[in-house]
Amino acid sequence: MEDDEAEPRPDRRRFLSGSLGVLGGAGALAANGPAARAAEPGADLAGANLPPNVPAWMTRQGAPILSPPYGVPSPFEAGVVRRRRSRSPTATAASSSTPLQDLHGIITPNGLHFERHHAGVPAIDPAQHRLMVHGLVERPLIFGMEELMRFPSVSRLHFIECSGNSAWAQAPSSATVQDLHGLISCCEWTGVLVSTVLAEVGAKPAAWMLAEGADAAGLTRSVPIAKAMDDAILAYAQNGERLRPEQGYPLRLVLPGFEGNMSVKWLRKLGDQPFQTREETAKYTDLMPDGLARQFTFVMEAKSVITFPSGGQVLGAKGFYEISGLAWSGRGRVVRVEVSTDGGANWRDAALQEPVLSKCLTRFRLPWRWDGSPARLQSRATDETGYEQPDRQALVDARGLNSGYHYNGVQEWRIAADGAVTNAV
Amino acid sequence: MEDDEAEPRPDRRRFLSGSLGVLGGAGALAANGPAARAAEPGADLAGANLPPNVPAWMTRQGAPILSPPYGVPSPFEAGVVRRRRSRSPTATAASSSTPLQDLHGIITPNGLHFERHHAGVPAIDPAQHRLMVHGLVERPLIFGMEELMRFPSVSRLHFIECSGNSAWAQAPSSATVQDLHGLISCCEWTGVLVSTVLAEVGAKPAAWMLAEGADAAGLTRSVPIAKAMDDAILAYAQNGERLRPEQGYPLRLVLPGFEGNMSVKWLRKLGDQPFQTREETAKYTDLMPDGLARQFTFVMEAKSVITFPSGGQVLGAKGFYEISGLAWSGRGRVVRVEVSTDGGANWRDAALQEPVLSKCLTRFRLPWRWDGSPARLQSRATDETGYEQPDRQALVDARGLNSGYHYNGVQEWRIAADGAVTNAV
Repeated sequence: MEDDEAEPRPDRRRFLSGSLGVLGGAGALAANGPAARAAEPGADLAGANLPPNVPAWMTRQGAPILSPPYGVPSPFEAGVVRRRRSRSPTATAASSSTPLQDLHGIITPNGLHFERHHAGVPAIDPAQHRLMVHGLVERPLIFGMEELMRFPSVSRLHFIECSGNSAWAQAPSSATVQDLHGLISCCEWTGVLVSTVLAEVGAKPAAWMLAEGADAAGLTRSVPIAKAMDDAILAYAQNGERLRPEQGYPLRLVLPGFEGNMSVKWLRKLGDQPFQTREETAKYTDLMPDGLARQFTFVMEAKSVITFPSGGQVLGAKGFYEISGLAWSGRGRVVRVEVSTDGGANWRDAALQEPVLSKCLTRFRLPWRWDGSPARLQSRATDETGYEQPDRQALVDARGLNSGYHYNGVQEWRIAADGAVTNAV
Repeated sequence: MEDDEAEPRPDRRRFLSGSLGVLGGAGALAANGPAARAAEPGADLAGANLPPNVPAWMTRQGAPILSPPYGVPSPFEAGVVRRRRSRSPTATAASSSTPLQDLHGIITPNGLHFERHHAGVPAIDPAQHRLMVHGLVERPLIFGMEELMRFPSVSRLHFIECSGNSAWAQAPSSATVQDLHGLISCCEWTGVLVSTVLAEVGAKPAAWMLAEGADAAGLTRSVPIAKAMDDAILAYAQNGERLRPEQGYPLRLVLPGFEGNMSVKWLRKLGDQPFQTREETAKYTDLMPDGLARQFTFVMEAKSVITFPSGGQVLGAKGFYEISGLAWSGRGRVVRVEVSTDGGANWRDAALQEPVLSKCLTRFRLPWRWDGSPARLQSRATDETGYEQPDRQALVDARGLNSGYHYNGVQEWRIAADGAVTNAV
């Protein structure tokens, strides 16, 4: 515990002191007229001409309702979008990342859910889409969407994270949290438990299930039946509405806590043959230093990342800031997030926003008073199994640098004396 | 408890029997070719040609990532939009409703959050927006958005409901749940607790706070300080991203559980003078049978509504259906939802989706086997204070029919022998 980082008391003006530098500057106020211009934002207004002038948008009727009927963000938020990851030669076998630095709470709006496609986004007519269940059952069955939607359903908040999220390779200091960790998103998924369907159709005992997508890649993954019967969902809705096309419309398998590619999108088949598919042999295996590969590394282990302040942002004047970020574990609930502002020498417990849900993002927050000197911000998560997020060196020592998947080392952001925040991993 | 409504066991094929009639028809399968055409959806496929033909969308690359960077729903969901309520003569003093019949779970996607504006949606530049706090403090203060966003924050899931939601007047039998009850939505709101700001600025003791919006209506409401200090939020984000323009971008007061108009959008002022505004005298008061009006009826009391099956929908063949709906209370958590399928003669407890949160929508579900005869579906909610949603007659007996606000009577949907679902209130 650092003395100078003790939690600020609710004493008056503690949060405000030194905050003026963050603002764009008094010039932004000029449009509101002399009275407002005379008053510094956040400053006392004793003697100023009150109330401030009426802003222009109060002098005329605003836009009518239903403009448009399905709403869109403010034009001032046009920069808050998914961005393409640069690695792939085509735009159909590619990925785009969620702007974590611009998000709050734990929900990812559907329009900002990260993408990872192997052959682009198929345009599927839901009336023609079918799910076939075969091998696991005595006689194969085909379901239409309306039939599936008649089954008893569940709604659960879960993250989905690409196994390739976060970087084994060292990234440039200019990297943002979206660049480094944006292949994770979190939604409320609604659908039918796989266990409900398999019980209904009289599934035969089997150790594995095969899930196949209706994209041009026919992406196919083997899933342990134990997982399928535990908490797997045949999802048809996210955050209230039907799935987005790029998230598997009209039907997606959701395997809570497992690597994202196994939550097969545009799901068309559940079967028991074959397995050892391309996506679990040539891809999505983890090459170890001894030349052997780890296979079937399903679970996304505990991880956390500070989203504010994070790479590319600039702090203003010294003073109060709330450090905020996201933590998660594919094994269950996050029970603890610790934050360091001195590169890992000292740690403090962050507050976890309730409710803390299993296999779901958890927002953490810690009050901090920046004294204006260089700082090194880190966070580490512990989940309900007792597993603690490792630092980079421990992870590299154990697994080497040959793998492109399952990196969950501690992220460090450096803050320079001028407030610039950069990646330090 | 009715014998014929006993909860279906997970016996094989119980959910499937009689379900074929729901589907659009075998014709929808024709595009997939003869093999698929030979197999009835949901039916056994013994002897059929397996696997079914490859659908057209698997034969070519799909759409690239970032089409578009901020994603949109499938074209097949184009009908899932907000719809204008017909009462108002202008489109700026008007409302539009959320399509509850098409939604799942508890989250309302931001693009479908209901609207109620008194003078349209102002186009506010967040860099120029200011919140002034005066009267409550020794010296008036003005905050810019970046300053407010530096305060310690919270993220909480809450519904917002217009006090004019649901109908005292009898509605046509063709009314949908969107028509009748669509002025409610539910999001994860992130912002600064009012109590945090008032403590920070050294607020003076006061009984009331005045909140004013920066729209052309300058919509203004008085708020008890006890509520402000309890759980009121100065919200700048909804469902992860910054507020939508029609929800108050860049800043909205959120008063969990209170009537929606008090969650003042485009918030520009918090003060202590004056109150008794137009919105709490000429409007938003409840005229009782004796000619007196109830004033300051803030809390939205417990309510529930079945969203499936609901008005305008058509059931297919008899057999298994999951009845599903939403329940909420402005006083806290919903603890019980009962469902009747015989017009209130018999009731069964529905399952509540966890987590059940305070002043938040709760999804309820009940398995039901429709025997093909006319049915009358009702739901009623009980909250943690013990308050039970009244039936229409009890509500009318107590409050008469002169008020346009705070109707929370039990909704009944009638199901005809041909499966047509109509409004019965």
